[in-house]
This record gives sequence, C-alpha cells and structure tokens, in this order.
Amino acid sequence: MTSRELFQHILRKKSFLCVGLDPEISKLPACVSGAEDPIFEFNRRIVDATHMYAAAYKPNFAFYESYGAKGMAALDKTVRYINKLDTTIFIIADAKRGDIGNTSKMYARAVFGEMPFDAVTVAPYMGEDSVTPFLTYGGKWAIILALTSNRGADDFQYHPGSGQRLFEKVLAVSQRWGNPDNLMYVVGATRAEMLTGIRKIVPDHFLLVPGVGAQGGSLEEVAQYGMNSQCGLLVNSSRGIIYADSSDRFDIVAGQKAREMQEEMALYLTRRFKI
Amino acid sequence: MTSRELFQHILRKKSFLCVGLDPEISKLPACVSGAEDPIFEFNRRIVDATHMYAAAYKPNFAFYESYGAKGMAALDKTVRYINKLDTTIFIIADAKRGDIGNTSKMYARAVFGEMPFDAVTVAPYMGEDSVTPFLTYGGKWAIILALTSNRGADDFQYHPGSGQRLFEKVLAVSQRWGNPDNLMYVVGATRAEMLTGIRKIVPDHFLLVPGVGAQGGSLEEVAQYGMNSQCGLLVNSSRGIIYADSSDRFDIVAGQKAREMQEEMALYLTRRFKI
Repeated sequence: MTSRELFQHILRKKSFLCVGLDPEISKLPACVSGAEDPIFEFNRRIVDATHMYAAAYKPNFAFYESYGAKGMAALDKTVRYINKLDTTIFIIADAKRGDIGNTSKMYARAVFGEMPFDAVTVAPYMGEDSVTPFLTYGGKWAIILALTSNRGADDFQYHPGSGQRLFEKVLAVSQRWGNPDNLMYVVGATRAEMLTGIRKIVPDHFLLVPGVGAQGGSLEEVAQYGMNSQCGLLVNSSRGIIYADSSDRFDIVAGQKAREMQEEMALYLTRRFKI
Repeated sequence: MTSRELFQHILRKKSFLCVGLDPEISKLPACVSGAEDPIFEFNRRIVDATHMYAAAYKPNFAFYESYGAKGMAALDKTVRYINKLDTTIFIIADAKRGDIGNTSKMYARAVFGEMPFDAVTVAPYMGEDSVTPFLTYGGKWAIILALTSNRGADDFQYHPGSGQRLFEKVLAVSQRWGNPDNLMYVVGATRAEMLTGIRKIVPDHFLLVPGVGAQGGSLEEVAQYGMNSQCGLLVNSSRGIIYADSSDRFDIVAGQKAREMQEEMALYLTRRFKI
C-alpha cells in the first residue's frame, strides 16, 4: 500500500484509527474464554464490531508469543481474517524487531513472507542495516520507534547530542534510508506538543501515534500538531477499546468506543480536507 | 543461574564459548535437508558435536520465526534438547525484545515461562520499564545491547551527549536496574580495544561478545581487554562454527572449530585463574 492509497482509505472511512489487538487471557470476557481458540474468538468479535471505524489494526506480538505456538497460530488466523474482511485495512506487526542485516532479513521474511502484514515496527538502536531489510518488500513498511509513550522514553531518547536529541537524530538520519511510501515513525501522543518540532524534521511521513486514551494523550492535540497534507497520522488505541467492557457485550461496547474516536477524527478530517 | 555458577561452569569446561544456532534452510547440508524436521536435525547434530566445548548456546529467533510455526516448534525442541543434555549450559534467547512495561512482561513470559531459556537479549531504546520485567524471574537474565558489532552501530550508539556517548549512557544508567547476577551486556568484538573503557563503567558484569570469527574480531584481544575476576565473558561464534562445512561431516567440522576456540580460551583462562 502506498501513502496515497492509505490516505484515500482514511478519507473514505473518515478515520485514522488504529485498533491495538493485545489479548491477555486473564482479561478476556467469560463468554469467549471457553471457546476452542479464545484469543482468535476475542479478536474476531472485536474486528467484526470495529472494522467499519478503523483504518488499521495493530496486534502486538508479545501478547501472542506469550502463549506459545497456540498464540502465534491465533495471530496468524487473526491477520488473515482481517485481510479477507477488508483488504483496504492496514495491518501492523507491532514486534519492535531489529538485528544485524542478515538477521533482520529473516525477521522481514517472517512478517511479510510468512504472514500478510503491511508494516512492522522496528527499534532503531542498531542502525541502518538493521532497518533496511524491511524496506525491500514492495508496498510494505517499516515503522521506526522515535519517541515512545512510556516512562522509560526519558532514559535515552532525549540524550542530547550537539544540537540534536537522540530521537531527533533517529528521525533525521533514518529518513534517508527509505521514503514516505515505506517508512513511518512511532511518536507517542503523551507528548503531543512536540509534534510541531517533529513535523519540521519529517513533514511528509506518516506517524503511528500510541498513547491516546488509557495513557492520557489528547486526540485533538495530536490532530492539531501532527496532521500533514495526506493526514499523515494513524492514532492507536488498544485497552481503551478492546477492554472497555468485560461482559458478553464487550464487542458492542468496543464498537461504540471505536465509533466515538472515528466521529471525532471525522471532524478533524472534514475541517482540514473539506470532505 | 547466578554469575558465580556460570563462572564455575566456565572453569570446569575451560570455555567461555557461546555457539550461535542460526539455521537457514538454504544453507543446510543436503544430508539433513531431507529430514522430517531439518532445522531441529541440524541443531541436534551441531549440539551433539559441540556441547563439550561450549558454555552457552544462542539461537537467534529471527531464523526460527522466518519459518513460521514449524520454525518455532524446532526452536522449542532445540532448547529442551540442550537443557536435557547438559543443565549447566546457559541458553540465550537472542530475540532483541523490548516494549512498554506491560508488554515486555508478556515477552518475558514467552521466553522464561513458555520456554526454558536462561537469558534474553533486549534493546534499550525504550528505557527502564522496557527492561525491568525481564529481571523479575529468579536466576534469569536480561542481556542489554550496548555496542553492537554491525556497521549500523555507528549510526546512533556513538551519539555524543555531555561527556557520554549513547552506549556509555546505556551501560551507566541501566546497571542501576539490576545487578551482575541478572544483567549482562552485548559488546561487539570488532571494537575490542574499547573493552578497556567499557570495563571502567561495568567492571563486574558479564559481557556477551559477538563478532569474533566471520565478523573479524580477535579472541585474544577480547580476553585481554574484557576479562574480569569472574571471567565475565561469553564469546559468540555462529557462522564460523555451524557453517564451517557443508558436507555430511558438517557436525564433525563444527566440533573441530568449537574445540579450536575452546583450546584458545583454555589458554587465557589458565593464565588468568591458575587452573
């Protein structure tokens, strides 16, 4: 998918919402925990109830790997289910991979060859050859961690160089490795006001923004400071949608939460793009 | 395993060799590629031929994930096989994980709960809460990337702060999160002379050193600059051992290569510890 195609899908759905699919067995509603494949059953009902409001889904690999082979099988089934339901949906492998060149090549094969993901999140610490193998698949994307939404982001990401903090250097240097059709960045919403400075470094790239909702970021501020001429935003919500309710109506409530976010997004998109 | 126990195992075997188990289907000798489970069969024969010379094994997850569920099943079987053969061997999940706190917790569960690894490599970019969940399992270790052996290491790891480069800050800050019994660091051998400076920051921690052999680092220099009072080194070789030969004698040649490294290590250990 190119950035232009992603923008078209966003305009059509009036949504730049990304739904995080992070199933924890201990948090699953009783009505699915008895199913043959509880993780897939949970995801399927969430996807059925939210896909009309979502531009993207983002399963985080940790939640699947922690249940071993069964978890990974449920992940594979989930991705194929979404892909069949709506081929315009952008599916992100939130795996935060990155290794030396010949090894990253194998990770790329895992997410793009073995599974039909559109994008994968990658950690920048090991530099260029750890990222570029993800950029050689036509229509696929690498999403590089720049400024994350967690407390630990303060430990190293602000490390001050000569005039450039580490996350700014990551943005400046890494954009030379690809282009706005195969590179995005993770920028946490808990620091929405910093999006102005970030947009000066990467005006054209899409940003994947976690931290809205449960982690306290404001959607309005993210849209205000982060939107570019092709929207350029995918805003993620995980817990705020998938765990909004724990009864057997959990999917209906998840759909309502996703719709609320989509309606707010429609407002900002309409204002900006006169649709 | 404590650092003291690991040191005892190293002295007993006169080896601080770590063998990297990175099987690529296209590189497997013809004599195993027809087996029912070629990856496991290759690993099993390598382990059988090298375990008397090795203190540790390090399967890199990318090579297993790239073959989907079958690859992960072969990984699981390999780890259990090593563990059964010799419980004193230290087994490292080279997965370079790291995510926000509640997610890293799930990754820790995957490598320590679902599989019997002793340690896992982690990327430091996301800071403290991305690493500490790996430190809560008794006897288990996190191995933090500090200075890697690839070309891309130059992109960000040397980013100069006020008197401290990024990798030095990673070492200085992160050692406060754990202790020499649950934290190690990855330091590439291609920069062996830098081990002197690194030992000033982390005198007591074990270092996992890749880059000897195929990547050009010198074992003698690593031992000279990096050894501490408990050895404090695990030196990894992957391709130089497992792909030394591609005939049906590949395991015998791998054993010879491992033995050559072990004999050189025995020399340095004997010299230092009068054993």
